[in-house]
Amino acid sequence: MITAVVLGAGNVATHLLEVFFNNEHIKVLQVYTRNPDTLLPESVQVPLIHQIEAIVEADLYIISVTDNAISAVAKQIPYSNKLVVHTSGTVAMEVLPEHFRKGVFYPLQTFSKNKAVDFKTIPICLEAENENDFKLLEIIGKSISTKCYAISSEQRKALHVSAVFVCNFVNHLYQMGNEICLENNIPFEILHPLIQETADKIKTLSPLEAQTGPAKRHDTNTINAHLQFLTDATQKEIYKLLTKSIIDHV
Amino acid sequence: MITAVVLGAGNVATHLLEVFFNNEHIKVLQVYTRNPDTLLPESVQVPLIHQIEAIVEADLYIISVTDNAISAVAKQIPYSNKLVVHTSGTVAMEVLPEHFRKGVFYPLQTFSKNKAVDFKTIPICLEAENENDFKLLEIIGKSISTKCYAISSEQRKALHVSAVFVCNFVNHLYQMGNEICLENNIPFEILHPLIQETADKIKTLSPLEAQTGPAKRHDTNTINAHLQFLTDATQKEIYKLLTKSIIDHV
Repeated sequence: MITAVVLGAGNVATHLLEVFFNNEHIKVLQVYTRNPDTLLPESVQVPLIHQIEAIVEADLYIISVTDNAISAVAKQIPYSNKLVVHTSGTVAMEVLPEHFRKGVFYPLQTFSKNKAVDFKTIPICLEAENENDFKLLEIIGKSISTKCYAISSEQRKALHVSAVFVCNFVNHLYQMGNEICLENNIPFEILHPLIQETADKIKTLSPLEAQTGPAKRHDTNTINAHLQFLTDATQKEIYKLLTKSIIDHV
Repeated sequence: MITAVVLGAGNVATHLLEVFFNNEHIKVLQVYTRNPDTLLPESVQVPLIHQIEAIVEADLYIISVTDNAISAVAKQIPYSNKLVVHTSGTVAMEVLPEHFRKGVFYPLQTFSKNKAVDFKTIPICLEAENENDFKLLEIIGKSISTKCYAISSEQRKALHVSAVFVCNFVNHLYQMGNEICLENNIPFEILHPLIQETADKIKTLSPLEAQTGPAKRHDTNTINAHLQFLTDATQKEIYKLLTKSIIDHV
């Protein structure tokens, strides 16, 4: 059984604590968070501490705090030569202090407080300075997910940028579709099957092969009618830029 | 049994012909297409004709051709006072000739030749000039899908613009994510669960509630690091515009 301390109690930390609880490969001994008002979900029965000096010794320290604070929090862990990992998609492994064995345990998913996720399907991107530590992280990763990948800090940066495109930006386009529907008394749910099929398609076709619509067809009549229809300046600008990009890329 | 003639043999027409074949509410008597080289899928055993004058009498004529040709094709149907519908998301019902009873039968989905679709989940947007014709279209719609909606031409225009945002533009963002992965030797499939979860989330949360990521967090460090990472000018421009829009909308 690998013992661990989790530092942080945000979205990612909370989801990890939930999936680690009752896991037979990892036992979380403590959760540390600076904020004394933090509450853990009832499903997580782990001692919560607010003084970093009170951290116990463990095989693994998982730092899941805001990117800018990772290095500072790590420095306060009152041990050395321990395996210390962070869970960030953007921060290089190298920001962790030199007196630790460094690693990364990055679950690639969009976590919202009010939406449960099935961890089994979440890719876990792992990195470690040495092979033994990588294997330890892999044991934990495989105990919660069917998909573990060795991803370097450089690749992780690229992956995170891609994730912003296919998740955050995509969700923002859903928001624009939602707004246009609301303004015209159309239930947004009419678009759910289309959204689902668009996401499904790229599992068997490349996005290039899967593309349809007026931009792909160079259908300037429809494109102009859409631009005339749109009244919001930002929506118009996004429509123009993405249409041009589709035309240029196809 | 409602008898019908389908005019056109493109993506939408072909998928409709497949789902109409062996349907107990509609019998397609003929398919008309101008192009003598057109082939129908083997699963569709319907006479194919290339001379519009040879069209037989039927209860319903379904025009599923490119938007610009709808009106011209309709005018050549050698009958009058028939129910004539088109399947377009963008064209107003009114472009159909006055001597017909007009209607629209618009399946809202992204059709690709090499990807089968489950018609049962596809919303069918219906419009007709009179109630009896609407009911007839509804019988056909409900025989192939669980979701039929009465959508006016004006609403359909809005719906089609929304569909471009949540499907074509979304798919293009998948393409950018794919390109960034390829350039960095990362298998794109790592992003499939994230893409799936992003599409799932908005079925229970609004897109605004579902938003995550650096733009939502106003995390300028990460945003700047991403912009520095991106080398493609178009990707950079899209990143900037969508990030600004998320910041302005949240």
